[in-house]
Amino acid sequence: MENFEFYRPTRYIFGIDTEKKVGEVVSGYGYKKVMLVYGGGSVVRSGLLERIEKSLSQSGIEYVKLGGVKPNPRADLVYEGIELGRREQVDFMLPVGGGSVIDTAKAIALGIPFEGDFFDIYQGKAKPKTALKTGVVLTIPAAGSEGSNSTVIQKEVDGKVLKLGCGSDFNVPLFAIMNPVLTYSLPVYQIACGVTDMMAHIMERYFTNTRGVSVTDRFCEGLLCSIIDSAIIAVRDPENYDARANLMWAGTMAHNNICGVGREQDWATHHLEHQLSALYDCAHGAGLAVMFPAWMEYNLNHDVMRFAQFANRVFGCDMNFSDPKETALQGIRNLRSFLHDIGMPLSFADIGASENDIPKLLNLLGVDEGEHTEGHFVVLRRSDCEKIYRIAAKFDSSTVY
Amino acid sequence: MENFEFYRPTRYIFGIDTEKKVGEVVSGYGYKKVMLVYGGGSVVRSGLLERIEKSLSQSGIEYVKLGGVKPNPRADLVYEGIELGRREQVDFMLPVGGGSVIDTAKAIALGIPFEGDFFDIYQGKAKPKTALKTGVVLTIPAAGSEGSNSTVIQKEVDGKVLKLGCGSDFNVPLFAIMNPVLTYSLPVYQIACGVTDMMAHIMERYFTNTRGVSVTDRFCEGLLCSIIDSAIIAVRDPENYDARANLMWAGTMAHNNICGVGREQDWATHHLEHQLSALYDCAHGAGLAVMFPAWMEYNLNHDVMRFAQFANRVFGCDMNFSDPKETALQGIRNLRSFLHDIGMPLSFADIGASENDIPKLLNLLGVDEGEHTEGHFVVLRRSDCEKIYRIAAKFDSSTVY
Repeated sequence: MENFEFYRPTRYIFGIDTEKKVGEVVSGYGYKKVMLVYGGGSVVRSGLLERIEKSLSQSGIEYVKLGGVKPNPRADLVYEGIELGRREQVDFMLPVGGGSVIDTAKAIALGIPFEGDFFDIYQGKAKPKTALKTGVVLTIPAAGSEGSNSTVIQKEVDGKVLKLGCGSDFNVPLFAIMNPVLTYSLPVYQIACGVTDMMAHIMERYFTNTRGVSVTDRFCEGLLCSIIDSAIIAVRDPENYDARANLMWAGTMAHNNICGVGREQDWATHHLEHQLSALYDCAHGAGLAVMFPAWMEYNLNHDVMRFAQFANRVFGCDMNFSDPKETALQGIRNLRSFLHDIGMPLSFADIGASENDIPKLLNLLGVDEGEHTEGHFVVLRRSDCEKIYRIAAKFDSSTVY
Repeated sequence: MENFEFYRPTRYIFGIDTEKKVGEVVSGYGYKKVMLVYGGGSVVRSGLLERIEKSLSQSGIEYVKLGGVKPNPRADLVYEGIELGRREQVDFMLPVGGGSVIDTAKAIALGIPFEGDFFDIYQGKAKPKTALKTGVVLTIPAAGSEGSNSTVIQKEVDGKVLKLGCGSDFNVPLFAIMNPVLTYSLPVYQIACGVTDMMAHIMERYFTNTRGVSVTDRFCEGLLCSIIDSAIIAVRDPENYDARANLMWAGTMAHNNICGVGREQDWATHHLEHQLSALYDCAHGAGLAVMFPAWMEYNLNHDVMRFAQFANRVFGCDMNFSDPKETALQGIRNLRSFLHDIGMPLSFADIGASENDIPKLLNLLGVDEGEHTEGHFVVLRRSDCEKIYRIAAKFDSSTVY
């Protein structure tokens, strides 16, 4: 096990009707004027935004609104939010939505007190010294941003679409209000994308070369089991409260790093995927469903027993003691079958991507054969990444049963 | 799943040599004068206390010392600490040790700013309004107090030994420094007591009537698996770093309530045990090893499938689909075998307790046939508690293989 620090001071307020407390909670911290950040459609249509506004007003909290956040959130709206926040002197950020909305609010929270261009922080050119605090009303369990120290923003720089992340203690939300009922109206496809994103957050931490971290291993495996069981129920019966509640909580636990402490993590697949969603604007979860099994296939021989452990403990595959690789491969097959069952794409064709774009994806990824590599479990050079993209491009989803 | 709040803002600093940072960490928070609380023997003999003092001095932190904490920590020393703290105007509590030392420091932290008798808080007669902050240097993984909101203190009141707990956000430590190497010198018996305590913290949360909390179930089961695997290594090879590191981290996760959210918890066994350690001054973990299997045996028929799930997922027992009770019973047998393997007592005789004292234990417990009951999984009246004590009294440890 490696040395680590773990600090996740978010206060989770979980369950039915909890969003009604938002005004009381914000005012309990002494904030006076918040920026409500949201996407569009459903938060407004469902009346949730109105309920939040009412709760704030009843607690004497002023607010300004910034709507229109899109998936794969863009820098444009962040700049707009920073200007709005400074002009209106807001002292607290309140995103109402999923990962894109939360990440936009976190970016604005970093940007308001920052003197330069906030995207310099994402590009690693500057470090934040402070940030506004953020509280979350979560409506889409997926990204885990409600309990994480990270935010991802997309910006076109010199004709290239950059999708970059920033990790910092400043980004950890003060509180997260999580009512599973608010997720009932999500389309099944979006539930499945969220499920895939959560699983990927765990698997990026699970495939590691660090040995002797059994607590973290067991947390990863148990959480994956719970997500799989709950997802199968949720896509058939979207108003099953317990399935929705377990998925919502699992999404947080998948990315607050409790499944990652004490060891090296990988994250190559997330970066491979970011280029897909940047280029084709597909859902992040959908891109991950295409890329993760491909990454696993390519790296299988690096540690067959690790993949066999995954197959056995997560998918209940019998261990083949005379040929562990068979068990390992069965785990990947089961992962693809599960993703297929919940309606996820598995190949380039399924998301409208083209094998001919692989050089473009590799350029966006910025890998080469030398110092610019991806991942840690296996360090991937440009030629490795190309082969992984090619596995995903050539995969034939009709072979999955 | 039930509604819940989860807020655990402790900063964990985990790994080799981390105790050397203690001065820097305390001074980072701006504290000036700390009270070092510790037991005696090994912390002094090993040179750890001296290293802590040196680190504090190097960071310009003043300190006063309060040694002599005993297992099943007593109120006397708390009163002494409160007086010392007020006189010396300490602004921070720094326990160096295990659960008893941390709980004593937490009690002093509550008591210093409290106007009345601190034990009124433990007796439920008063509520704390503030407390000094506490930071921990952990040397004994067991109680989980380094990440919990609780503290237990023992006091003789009107000739009766009361062992009472207090739960409050004020009790959650600001930080916990956890170096597994510091646990190498623990006697094997104390490792085993710690292991039993951790397992009991999880099992008190696992046996519940609340349905549909699979994330929490899986965390419980996974953590128990990791503890069992690590304990078997640690008692044979006390300097196995990974085994010690997993046990140390597991002890925290077992009691920071990540294994308890979203459902009703039991806690009858802890209360049944507290009377054993109050009366016989046995180790808390040893008392739990005697009481938990007895509690399980008595309550088996309340939810056979729950005990079968425990047996299957924690001890890998094959599910007997035609007779689930057989699987459930095998789980209890496996738990006793495991506890026996690591050197724990399993019966009254093993800890020098007498079946004749059962009425005395029941009086200490304060249960009756009416409103004063114990537990939630099964609500236990005095006659039930008597039967559970009797199972533990009559158990013959020589039957365990």
